Amino acid sequence: MRWNEYLDHHQERFIDELKALIAIPSVSADPGHAPDMLRAADWVVARLKAAGIAEARVVPTAGHPVVFAEWLGAGSDKPTILIYGHYDVQPPEPYDAWTSPPFEPEIRDGKIWGRGASDDKGGVMAAILGIESVMATEGRLPVNVKFFFEGEEEIGSPSIPDAVRTMAGEMASDMIFSADGLQWSPDQPQIIEALKGMLKLELVVRGPRSDQHSGLHGGGIANPALALAQMLAQLKSTEGLVTVPGFYDDVIDLDDETRAAIARIPYDEAAYLAETGAPATTGEPGYTTRERLWARPTLDVNGLTSGWQGPGSKTVLPAEARAKITCRLVAAQTPEAVARAIEAQVQRVTPFGVTAELKVLPGGAPPFLAPAGHNAGSVASEVLAEVYGRAPYRTRVGGSIPILSTFAEVLGVHAVMLGFSHDDENLHAPDEFFRLDSFRRGQEVYARLLQRLGQG
Amino acid sequence: MRWNEYLDHHQERFIDELKALIAIPSVSADPGHAPDMLRAADWVVARLKAAGIAEARVVPTAGHPVVFAEWLGAGSDKPTILIYGHYDVQPPEPYDAWTSPPFEPEIRDGKIWGRGASDDKGGVMAAILGIESVMATEGRLPVNVKFFFEGEEEIGSPSIPDAVRTMAGEMASDMIFSADGLQWSPDQPQIIEALKGMLKLELVVRGPRSDQHSGLHGGGIANPALALAQMLAQLKSTEGLVTVPGFYDDVIDLDDETRAAIARIPYDEAAYLAETGAPATTGEPGYTTRERLWARPTLDVNGLTSGWQGPGSKTVLPAEARAKITCRLVAAQTPEAVARAIEAQVQRVTPFGVTAELKVLPGGAPPFLAPAGHNAGSVASEVLAEVYGRAPYRTRVGGSIPILSTFAEVLGVHAVMLGFSHDDENLHAPDEFFRLDSFRRGQEVYARLLQRLGQG
Repeated sequence: MRWNEYLDHHQERFIDELKALIAIPSVSADPGHAPDMLRAADWVVARLKAAGIAEARVVPTAGHPVVFAEWLGAGSDKPTILIYGHYDVQPPEPYDAWTSPPFEPEIRDGKIWGRGASDDKGGVMAAILGIESVMATEGRLPVNVKFFFEGEEEIGSPSIPDAVRTMAGEMASDMIFSADGLQWSPDQPQIIEALKGMLKLELVVRGPRSDQHSGLHGGGIANPALALAQMLAQLKSTEGLVTVPGFYDDVIDLDDETRAAIARIPYDEAAYLAETGAPATTGEPGYTTRERLWARPTLDVNGLTSGWQGPGSKTVLPAEARAKITCRLVAAQTPEAVARAIEAQVQRVTPFGVTAELKVLPGGAPPFLAPAGHNAGSVASEVLAEVYGRAPYRTRVGGSIPILSTFAEVLGVHAVMLGFSHDDENLHAPDEFFRLDSFRRGQEVYARLLQRLGQG
Repeated sequence: MRWNEYLDHHQERFIDELKALIAIPSVSADPGHAPDMLRAADWVVARLKAAGIAEARVVPTAGHPVVFAEWLGAGSDKPTILIYGHYDVQPPEPYDAWTSPPFEPEIRDGKIWGRGASDDKGGVMAAILGIESVMATEGRLPVNVKFFFEGEEEIGSPSIPDAVRTMAGEMASDMIFSADGLQWSPDQPQIIEALKGMLKLELVVRGPRSDQHSGLHGGGIANPALALAQMLAQLKSTEGLVTVPGFYDDVIDLDDETRAAIARIPYDEAAYLAETGAPATTGEPGYTTRERLWARPTLDVNGLTSGWQGPGSKTVLPAEARAKITCRLVAAQTPEAVARAIEAQVQRVTPFGVTAELKVLPGGAPPFLAPAGHNAGSVASEVLAEVYGRAPYRTRVGGSIPILSTFAEVLGVHAVMLGFSHDDENLHAPDEFFRLDSFRRGQEVYARLLQRLGQG
C-alpha cells in the first residue's frame, strides 16, 4: 500500500481520532481544566507512539506540559525536522452560541465542528497522520523528525521560552514547520515570509498629587490628560507617519521584487472596509494599505485612562493620565532600540508642569523574517504547489507569533508556517470548525514534505 | 435694647437653634432623606416667622422645596433686598471619620461641629438672626426684605432655575445677597467680584465598528485613541494657550486697575504648589498664576476613555475614544459661542479616517461679573470694612455658581456673596465646623447692612 492509499483507507478512523482529541476540553486559560490538559498531552503521546514515534513523552514546564517526541532512525546524514503545534484550545464561552456543544464534535457539511478543530488539534493530527502514512507504508521515515506540541499557545506561552532554552539540545533541527497556521483560501496556498515583532509600552503622565477641582485650579497648573494627548500627538502624525526620531532607522526597506509580489496578491479595499467598519484606510504615506499592514512598523494607542469616565461630567483636573501603546516591528528593528527611541522622544516632548514615565511592559518580541532563499520555505512552497496545483502566495502578517521568534533566537532556525486552517473557521469564536478537505490535504502535505526532504 | 445688645443677649439661644437645624439631616442627594428635607424647610419657615417675617412659606418645586419669605413693611420708596441661602447639606459619609456624629452637633474650641454648620445652615441662620435683631429692637426693618432658601444647592440645583423663573415676580428685588459664601480669612473680608461660567463637553472619536486586532489592522486604518490625542493637542498649546480660533473673542480684558488690585492680594506660590502637589504652575502666557486662576478662561480635559484600561497590555485598535472637556468662562463669553468655536475647530482638525462628534453636556452656565461700581457690592464693602476693621479684598473665583448667573439672567440683579465660612472648615468633608465668631460676625454684618441701606 502506498502512503496515499493508507491515508484514504484510514480516513474515517482518523476523523474519529480527531473527534476523540477535540472531546478533551484542554482549555489552558482555565485552571479547572488542568487535569484535562494532562489528559490531552497523554493522548497525544499515545497517538505519536501508535504512529511509530516510540520516543514520545510528556515534559513538565513551569505551566502546562509540552509533548516532545522524536524519531531519529534516518541517520545523521539526513536532515532533522521539528514539527510545532499546540494541543490547548481557547475557552468555549459563550456555550449557548454553539450549534453543537464545543466538546462533543460533530460532522456536518463536510466539516468537523468543535472547539480546537481548526486551532490547532486538526493541524497537530494532520502532521502526525501524514508522517504515520509514510512510516506505516515504508517502515521508516526518509528524514529524522521531532515533535514539540505545547499547551500554552492560547495564553501567550508564558513558560515556553524557558522550556525551549532548557530543551534546546534535544530540539536541535535543520528545519522547523509549524502545524499552527493558515492557508490563503481553501484553493490557494501561501507561504508566510514575515511576522511583526512587538513592543508594549505604557506612558504615564502625572501632575498634581490627587484629582483637583478644575474650577479652582484650571489654568493654574498643567493638566496631565491634555499633556498626555499633546505628547501622543508628537509620536505619530495625523498622516500616519511615526514622528519619533530613529523609529524607522533599522527597518529593512521593501525591495521592488517584494513590493511587486505583494501587489500581485488580490486585495479588495471595499471588503476590507466592510470587515473592519472603518470609514477609510489610511496610514504611513508612500505605501499601499497591504504594504503597511504586512511590512511596515506601526505605533498604536491601545487604551487611554484618565480622570472621570462615567456618564455626564465631573469637573476634575486629573492627577494622572495613562496610555497603553504597542508598536509592531519589522525586521531588523528590535524592541530595545525602538523603546529607547520613544523614551528619548518622550523626554523631548514632555510639557512643562508635568512628569512623564514610559514603562516597557512584558511581552516584547523581535520581528520574524524568513531569510531570502530560505530552504525550508522553498521546499514547502514546492510541496504546496504540487498539492494545490497552484504556486503559493508569498505573504506577510501584521500580527506577532512570539514562539517563532523564540525558535529563531534560541534554536537558530526560521520556522515555516505550514498549517491548513482558514480565517473563516471561527478560530476563537463559537462554532469553530475545520474542513475535512483541509484535514486530508494537510496529511498529504506532511507526507509529501517528508518524501521531498528525503530525496535531498 | 439696641440690636447689638440683642445679639449678645440671645447668642446662647441662637447657638442652640443652629444646633437644632443642624440636627435635621437634610441630605438632598439621598432620596431616603426627603422627609428630613421637608422638616428642615418647615423649621426654617417657623424660624423666619418667629423673627417677625410673617409671610413665610414652603414652595414646592420639581425637586426639593424652596423656602420663600418676605417683609415689605418698609414701603415702596425703600429698596428691596433678597437674601439667598440653602438649607440642604452634603452627605455625611464616611461616618466613622467624624469626631462627633454629623447630625449631633457639638461645641468644641469655640466652634460648632456638624454637617451643614458652615455650608450653609450657619449662613442662613446668621442672616435671619441679624435681621431679627433689627426687627426685635426697632419693631420694623429699614428696607424691604425677601428670603429665598433652596434645598438643592448640593446636587447642582436642578429644579431651581425653573423655580426662579416661576417666582420671578415675587422675587423682584433691587439687590441680592448670598449668605452662602466665604470670607478670605477669619481676619480679612473679601468681595467676590467674578465667578467663571461653565461649558461641559464630550468629544467622541470613532473608527472601526468594534475594537480590532492591532496586529492585523494597525497601519491599515486610523486609530481613534491617537486621533483623539491629536485633536486635543489642537485645542490647547503646551504653553497653555487655547488655540481654538475665536475662543478668546468675547473675553473682557483685565484693565490695569483690576490687575493691580489682584496683585495686591497676598499670593504664596510655594504654598499653592504644596496644596496641589503639582510640580510647577503654568498656563496661558502673559498672565500671573492668580490672574489665570481668577480671571482668564480655561479649557481642561477632565477624563479620557478608550480601549484597554486594565493591567498590562491588550493589543486592540480601539473602536472609539472619548474625552470629557470643561471650559471655565469669563465675562462676556457665553457657553453657546464657545461651544460653536470648539465645534468648528473639531471639524477643522478631525484627522482623515475617523469621525468625531462633540456633545454639549448639561450644566453649562454663563460667567458672573459684578458691574463696575456695583452699588450692592459697595455697600457690602463698607459694612465689611466696619465690622472687620479692614477693607475687603476684591477677589475672583475660578469656580462656577450657576445660581448667581440665573439670578442675573432672570431677575436682572448681580448678587453679592456675603457669607462667613472659611475654606478650612471641611465644607464637604467629615468634621465640618463653623466658627462661633464668624456666626456672630455674620449676624452683625446683616444687621448693619439693613441699617446702612435704610439710610439710603
